[in-house]
Amino acid sequence: MINTLLLPELREMLAENDVAGLADFCEAMHPARAAEFMEGLTAEETWGVLKAADPDRRVSIFEYLDQQRQVDILETGDPAETSKLITIMAPDDRVDLLKQVEDDTVETLLPLVPTEERRDIARLSQYPEGTAGSLMTTSVARLPESVTVGEAIDELARQTKNHETIYYIYIVDDDNHLRGLISARQLLTHLGTPDERVADIMERDLVTVEATDDQEAVAARVADYNFLAIPVVDHEHHLVGIITHDDVIDVLREEAEEDAYRAGGIAPLEETYLNTPIHTLLWKRGVWLAILLAASFLTVIALQSFDEMLAVVKWIAFFLPLIVSCGGNSGGQSATLIITSLTSGDLQLNDWPRVLLRELTMGLALGTALGAIAYCGALFGVEGPTAVEKLVVPITLVFVVTCGTIVGGALPLIFRRIGLDPALMSNPFVAGIIDITGIVIYMTVCVLMLKQLADPFSG
Amino acid sequence: MINTLLLPELREMLAENDVAGLADFCEAMHPARAAEFMEGLTAEETWGVLKAADPDRRVSIFEYLDQQRQVDILETGDPAETSKLITIMAPDDRVDLLKQVEDDTVETLLPLVPTEERRDIARLSQYPEGTAGSLMTTSVARLPESVTVGEAIDELARQTKNHETIYYIYIVDDDNHLRGLISARQLLTHLGTPDERVADIMERDLVTVEATDDQEAVAARVADYNFLAIPVVDHEHHLVGIITHDDVIDVLREEAEEDAYRAGGIAPLEETYLNTPIHTLLWKRGVWLAILLAASFLTVIALQSFDEMLAVVKWIAFFLPLIVSCGGNSGGQSATLIITSLTSGDLQLNDWPRVLLRELTMGLALGTALGAIAYCGALFGVEGPTAVEKLVVPITLVFVVTCGTIVGGALPLIFRRIGLDPALMSNPFVAGIIDITGIVIYMTVCVLMLKQLADPFSG
Repeated sequence: MINTLLLPELREMLAENDVAGLADFCEAMHPARAAEFMEGLTAEETWGVLKAADPDRRVSIFEYLDQQRQVDILETGDPAETSKLITIMAPDDRVDLLKQVEDDTVETLLPLVPTEERRDIARLSQYPEGTAGSLMTTSVARLPESVTVGEAIDELARQTKNHETIYYIYIVDDDNHLRGLISARQLLTHLGTPDERVADIMERDLVTVEATDDQEAVAARVADYNFLAIPVVDHEHHLVGIITHDDVIDVLREEAEEDAYRAGGIAPLEETYLNTPIHTLLWKRGVWLAILLAASFLTVIALQSFDEMLAVVKWIAFFLPLIVSCGGNSGGQSATLIITSLTSGDLQLNDWPRVLLRELTMGLALGTALGAIAYCGALFGVEGPTAVEKLVVPITLVFVVTCGTIVGGALPLIFRRIGLDPALMSNPFVAGIIDITGIVIYMTVCVLMLKQLADPFSG
Repeated sequence: MINTLLLPELREMLAENDVAGLADFCEAMHPARAAEFMEGLTAEETWGVLKAADPDRRVSIFEYLDQQRQVDILETGDPAETSKLITIMAPDDRVDLLKQVEDDTVETLLPLVPTEERRDIARLSQYPEGTAGSLMTTSVARLPESVTVGEAIDELARQTKNHETIYYIYIVDDDNHLRGLISARQLLTHLGTPDERVADIMERDLVTVEATDDQEAVAARVADYNFLAIPVVDHEHHLVGIITHDDVIDVLREEAEEDAYRAGGIAPLEETYLNTPIHTLLWKRGVWLAILLAASFLTVIALQSFDEMLAVVKWIAFFLPLIVSCGGNSGGQSATLIITSLTSGDLQLNDWPRVLLRELTMGLALGTALGAIAYCGALFGVEGPTAVEKLVVPITLVFVVTCGTIVGGALPLIFRRIGLDPALMSNPFVAGIIDITGIVIYMTVCVLMLKQLADPFSG
C-alpha cells in the first residue's frame, strides 16, 4: 500500500527546489518511515529528495528503499554522487545491491569508491549466495586484548558512527584471531572500575560460525541463542565479520517463503510475485507441472490395464477422483508435518521408527473414519451397486489413506537421509505418487471383492 | 539430536553431590549451551544440576530448556526453590510458562512469589494469545524526561541486571506517558557532554504498537524497521512494555510453521509433532480430511450424471485422475503464490486486476504446454481413441489449468477481502474445488467434441 499523504508536498518542494524543506522532511522521522512516504515518487524524484539530506541521513533512508528503487537510482543518478552512497552503505547491503545493478553501472561506480571500501566489496563478493559470508557485514567493533574498560568505552564512543552494532565488541589479538566478546551492557556494569582490563571480564567461550556455513543453519543458531549478532570466522579463527539480528530475521522470512513455494510445487522466486517476469514464472511453475504430468501418465496406463473391469462395472469410475484425492490429501498432510518438523529441528532422522508407527496408526484410524463417511455417502448417493458391493469404497480408503500417510511420512525422511532437501518432497509430489498407488489399490480391491461377490452367484 | 558428551560426567557429579563441580559446569559456557548438554538428563537430574548454580545463572540456563522440561521441573521441584525461578525469570517468559503448568502447581507457587512480580504476572496474563500484550515484557529501562546524559548512563549501569535489553531507554513523563527514546549508542556519542539533557537529544517520533495489536503485524513492523525492540503502549499512550528482537524471531518462526501446516490442510499444532498426542493429531487432520471428502463427493455425483458417456466411451475414464491432478497442481501453485505474497505484504488487495490478468495468461500458457505434452503421451501411450478424438485431452487441459490458476489466484484475494485469513484457502481446498470443476469441464468437452466427431459418420 503506497502512502500518498506527503506526495503533493514533496513534489511541490522538489518543483520549488526547496532544499531546506526537503532536508527537514528527511530529518523529521525514522528513516524507514521517510522511505515509506517516498514510495509513490519516481526514482528520479526520490533521488532529488535524498540529495537534500546530509550524506549519513541520505544513506539511512536509501537503505530502507525497495531494492528495485535502489537499483534505479544507481543506474540513473550522477555516479559522482551515487558512488558516495556505496561508500557509506553497510558492507553487506552494498554487496547485495551491486549484484543487482547492470555491470556497466558497477564499472562506472567502483573506481569512484575509496580503495578500502572497494577491497571490502571485492572480499565480500567472493562468498556464494546462501552462505554466512554472503550475509555478514565486515563493519565490526573490535578492540585489542590489552584495553581497559575506560579505554573501551571511549573507543566505542568514537566508533559508534561506523558500525552497524556497537552493542557487542569483539576482542582480537594482534593477528586478528577472535579471543573474546564483551557486550556494551557488561562494560556499563563495570563503569565504576575504568582501569579493569577488558580481557579479564570478557566472555571467552564464544559461539561462532564459519564464513562458508549455510545461512539457514546460522539463522537458526542466532535465533536459538537470542543473540544480537554472531561472529563469523575463517578456518584459522580470524574474525572476518558479524551477522546481525536484522539479517537473521531477513533470512528466516526468506527461507519461510522458499519453503512455502516448494510445498506448493514452485521453484522459489528471487523477486516478488508482481515483479517476476511472466516468462520466469511460467518456467518456475511449468517445469514442475510437466514433471507431475509425466508422473500422472502412469495413472492413465494403470487404468488402461484395468479397462475391462471399468467397462463391466461402470460405477467404479465414479469413485476414482474421490479415492485419489483422499490419498493425496492425507499423504500431503503427513509430508507437511514431517518436512516442517525436520526444518524446525523438532524431528531428527533417528526418530524414524516413531514417525512410521505414528503415521501407520494415523493412516489406519483416518482411513477407517473416512471410509465410514464415504460408505454412508455411497449408500445414499450412488445408484447401481449393492450395499455389499459398495464396501469396496471404504476398504480401499483404509488402504489408500494408510499408504498415503506412510509414503508422505517416509519420503521426506528418505530425502534427508540421502542428503537432499526434504522440502523437495512437496505435497504435489507426494500426491502424484499416491495417485498411482491409490489406483492400483482400488483396482485390486475391486478385482478381489467384486469377484468374490460374483462367485457365489455364478458358482 | 541429544548431546551425550557430558552426560556421564554430570551424572557422576550428581551421584557424588559435587556441588562445586556442577556450579563450574553451569558457569563455564553460554547458558544456551549448558542447557543443550543437559537435554539427555531427566527433569530431576537437570534440577539437581541447576541447584548448584547461583540463582541468576540458574534462571539463565533454565530459560533455555525445552518448555516441557521447564514444566516438569516446576511440577516436581520444591516450590520454595522453584518459586524463586519464577521471581527472577523474564516477565513474558514466566507468564507463558505458567500457562502450561497444572493449576495446582500455579496455586502453590504464586503465593511464594513476591507481590510486585505476582501483580506483573496477573497484568500480563490478561492479554489474549497472539496479541502484542502477550508477547511483551514489562521489564523496560525507563527514565524521566529531566535526566542528563551522565545521570542516564549511571542509572543504566545500575539497571543493567534487571532488564532484558538496556540498549534502548524509554523516556516517560510523570504519568508514564511515552515521550521518547534514546539508544545506548546515542548516549555513548554524547559521553563528552554529561550535563546535556536527554530530552534534547532523544528521538521523539517513535514507532509504537498497542497491546491489543496482532503479534504477526507487530513482528512484521519490527522486522521492517530493523529495531532491537518496539515499545508497547495502551490507548492513552502509557508505556506498558516492549517487544524485543528475539521474541519477534520466535513469532516469525511460529507463524511460518502455522502457514506451512495450513497450506498442507492441517490445523496448526501447539506442540511439536512427536509431542502432540495421537488423538489431537487425528482430530487436527481428520476434520479437514472429512470436509475435503465431503467436497469430493460432488465429483462422484458429477460423474454419475455422465454415466452413459463413460459406459459408451470407456477411455474417457483413463484420463480422469490426470486431468484432475493437473488442475489441482496448477491451482495450488497459484494459491501458494498469492497467499505467500499477501502474507509477506508484497501484494495488496487492490492489485487484483493485475493478479487475475497474470493468472489468466499463465493458465492459458501452461494449459497449452501441458496439453501438448499430454497429447503426445496420449498419441503413443493410449489405444482406442483416434488421434482426433484424443484432442479432447489437450483442449480440456487448457480450460482446466486456466480455471485452476484463476480460481487459485482469486480465492485467497476474496478471503482477504471478506476478512478471512487467505491461508485458509490452502492447496487441498483449491484442489478440491478444481476437482469438481475439472470433471464438469472434461465431460462437457467430451460431449461436444465426441458428438461432433460422431456426427459426420452417423449423418
